Amino acid sequence: MSKFVGYRCSLCKKEYLPGQVTYTCSCGGNLDIVLDYEAIKKKYQPDDLLCRDEAALWRYLPLIPVSFPKSGERTPLGLAGGTPIISLARLAKKFGLEQLWLKDESRNPTASFKDRASAVVVARAIEINAEVVVTASTGNAGAALAGMAAAVGQKAVIFAPKTAPPAKVAQLLVFGAKVLLVDGSYDDAFDLTVKAAEEFGWYCRNTGYNPFTLEGKKTAAFEIWQWLSLAKLGTKASSPLTVFVSVGDGNIISGIHKGFKDLLALGWLERMPRIIGVQAEGSAAIANAFKAGNETIIPVSATTLADSISVDLPRDGVRAVRAARETGGTYLTVSDAEILSAIAELGSAGVFAEPAGATAYAGLAAAQAQGLLDPGAPVLVVNTGSGLKDVRAAMQAVQAAPIIQPDLESVKKHL
Amino acid sequence: MSKFVGYRCSLCKKEYLPGQVTYTCSCGGNLDIVLDYEAIKKKYQPDDLLCRDEAALWRYLPLIPVSFPKSGERTPLGLAGGTPIISLARLAKKFGLEQLWLKDESRNPTASFKDRASAVVVARAIEINAEVVVTASTGNAGAALAGMAAAVGQKAVIFAPKTAPPAKVAQLLVFGAKVLLVDGSYDDAFDLTVKAAEEFGWYCRNTGYNPFTLEGKKTAAFEIWQWLSLAKLGTKASSPLTVFVSVGDGNIISGIHKGFKDLLALGWLERMPRIIGVQAEGSAAIANAFKAGNETIIPVSATTLADSISVDLPRDGVRAVRAARETGGTYLTVSDAEILSAIAELGSAGVFAEPAGATAYAGLAAAQAQGLLDPGAPVLVVNTGSGLKDVRAAMQAVQAAPIIQPDLESVKKHL
Repeated sequence: MSKFVGYRCSLCKKEYLPGQVTYTCSCGGNLDIVLDYEAIKKKYQPDDLLCRDEAALWRYLPLIPVSFPKSGERTPLGLAGGTPIISLARLAKKFGLEQLWLKDESRNPTASFKDRASAVVVARAIEINAEVVVTASTGNAGAALAGMAAAVGQKAVIFAPKTAPPAKVAQLLVFGAKVLLVDGSYDDAFDLTVKAAEEFGWYCRNTGYNPFTLEGKKTAAFEIWQWLSLAKLGTKASSPLTVFVSVGDGNIISGIHKGFKDLLALGWLERMPRIIGVQAEGSAAIANAFKAGNETIIPVSATTLADSISVDLPRDGVRAVRAARETGGTYLTVSDAEILSAIAELGSAGVFAEPAGATAYAGLAAAQAQGLLDPGAPVLVVNTGSGLKDVRAAMQAVQAAPIIQPDLESVKKHL
Repeated sequence: MSKFVGYRCSLCKKEYLPGQVTYTCSCGGNLDIVLDYEAIKKKYQPDDLLCRDEAALWRYLPLIPVSFPKSGERTPLGLAGGTPIISLARLAKKFGLEQLWLKDESRNPTASFKDRASAVVVARAIEINAEVVVTASTGNAGAALAGMAAAVGQKAVIFAPKTAPPAKVAQLLVFGAKVLLVDGSYDDAFDLTVKAAEEFGWYCRNTGYNPFTLEGKKTAAFEIWQWLSLAKLGTKASSPLTVFVSVGDGNIISGIHKGFKDLLALGWLERMPRIIGVQAEGSAAIANAFKAGNETIIPVSATTLADSISVDLPRDGVRAVRAARETGGTYLTVSDAEILSAIAELGSAGVFAEPAGATAYAGLAAAQAQGLLDPGAPVLVVNTGSGLKDVRAAMQAVQAAPIIQPDLESVKKHL
């Protein structure tokens, strides 16, 4: 475990040893986990990771600051991550792109990106002998925590806003978590979780607040790096890979940035991909800060059908702004109507994304309108979750099917 | 393509050359595809397949009677199958089993087992230059066909009974398929599809009726074989592996049987696993025939909440009876209440199954009650689909979550 040497505050730069702190800095800032890159470099070459015979995110264990729990072997915890990258060849033409790819996080064990963070947080909980894990969630993070906890027989408590989609709540309950639906927003649920964790001694997974969430999410960047290495895409193109990612709390984009930063620090990544954050117009606190040219996150009153990225006060806003700024990226906003169109377009390529998942793809049209797309550069969009998580939204993206009588005449009428 | 030498009727044994027939035998029987085992054996060793660097079912292309379509590379079509096998160690204890495993087919691209059949049928459609693929489906097979067709830019038409769960219909529509909801049963939709395919020259994927569905589904058996080979489970135990699989139309269990038969014929499988079919009490036409000791499938008026296996007239009943009979297996039936309990139990291990998927696991208790479980023999249950496909059913398996005020007092009241 020598690779994990401490924490550094993302705001005031104060440093802590591994045992000195659990969640955030005394200044309130989110903590970055500090790895001993020199020690890692001495022990491993990139090929050691590229050739490890594991499909899941645990392939990258040498770069993750936890031990793999023995109880997690051959369970959904052991199978988080390792999601495929799909070619969207026909859709690429629409944008005049030579190459358009999609990393499909809906193929995670509980069908969202959040499994990465939850798998690593549960591994950490086991290390520190936490009996109960808890989180606030609009659904995906909770389902991921409940699923990963169930996989290893750990207790989970989930606070969700009572407006969370029924499919997501059902998933929490089926995984055997104690679920409390909060009569309030995600932000109310978040604050209540922090208080409850203090009061009852639970280990809190809350996004951004818990430094290990970022360390789980960064593994998506490792997988993109591996794919780049094998496909040799990065070296052929004149521009670096551009990654489009939807942004709510800001933790996924920050995690992807952290992963690439780890690889750059190790000297294993040739050049930093450009990271473009895409927010829903009605939940754009981070995009607002980016456009204002500062790191001051001003809460909004969020309204978007993309529930997973509907956030009044993003909990990882500062690092999320930097993910775009430090990589030559930017922030874009898209309307709910554009998100619904994106669901249907991705569907036409065989990918069923939830609204938040389709938001990254919706950003492509906005990027094209602003002249941000380089036709020769490879583009990758991240689909963060499965459309099966929010069927109500999907139904808005398509026309309802007609009901017909079981005879050929009725069929002919509807063709 | 020399491996695919023709068809043999499962009922009258009449043989056909590859170009002589498209769907069923002149006697009405479903056709088995005949492979040239000698040619395959000459060209391949088991290790050639075990070591191929592909996660999806296409790893087994030398045993599948189609060519891999170039347009399917790095799309959901190219990513069908390759699902994980999970250890249910805690649940094993409940049944006094040393080893209990689950093959999680919910991790397929469209979240069900049916992707295997649809991927292979779409590959076949491309080979024979079919412009439109069509199927009748309660949801999963249709979603799979729509998704696989979308992946390669092919047109799909789906007939579903109007009672199909909304999540499944939404998925069909998002994939851009033409969906017609039939005011009738699955069987009405099935018959209408056959007529429409004839009338309009479409290629019909209907389960069992199209011989290539079985050839897709058999790949699950190949993956189980590979896992057995690597884990060396088969050689340690005194009894062979027992596979529990839910049964509706009978095509999945027949497909798994066909896969094991292929391997046995090639001399690559040490001993045939025992295959146990599990049906819902309210949709037990195949179990009835098995118990009557014959192959006469008498239609029932199906009523079960497990919509994917709710079938009046199973379309692959005869081969399904044989899958159990020829492997020393049996048929079991379970109630809807037992299926709901199974959903919650699998959830407690981190697996969210749809009712039809949980039915196989529900059969374990029935098997134990009848003394059919050998504690030392490894048992594998197949989860055929994701619980996100039918959230209404999942909600019946769990208690609804309470709504609380956002304060600690409210939390304490509900712990």
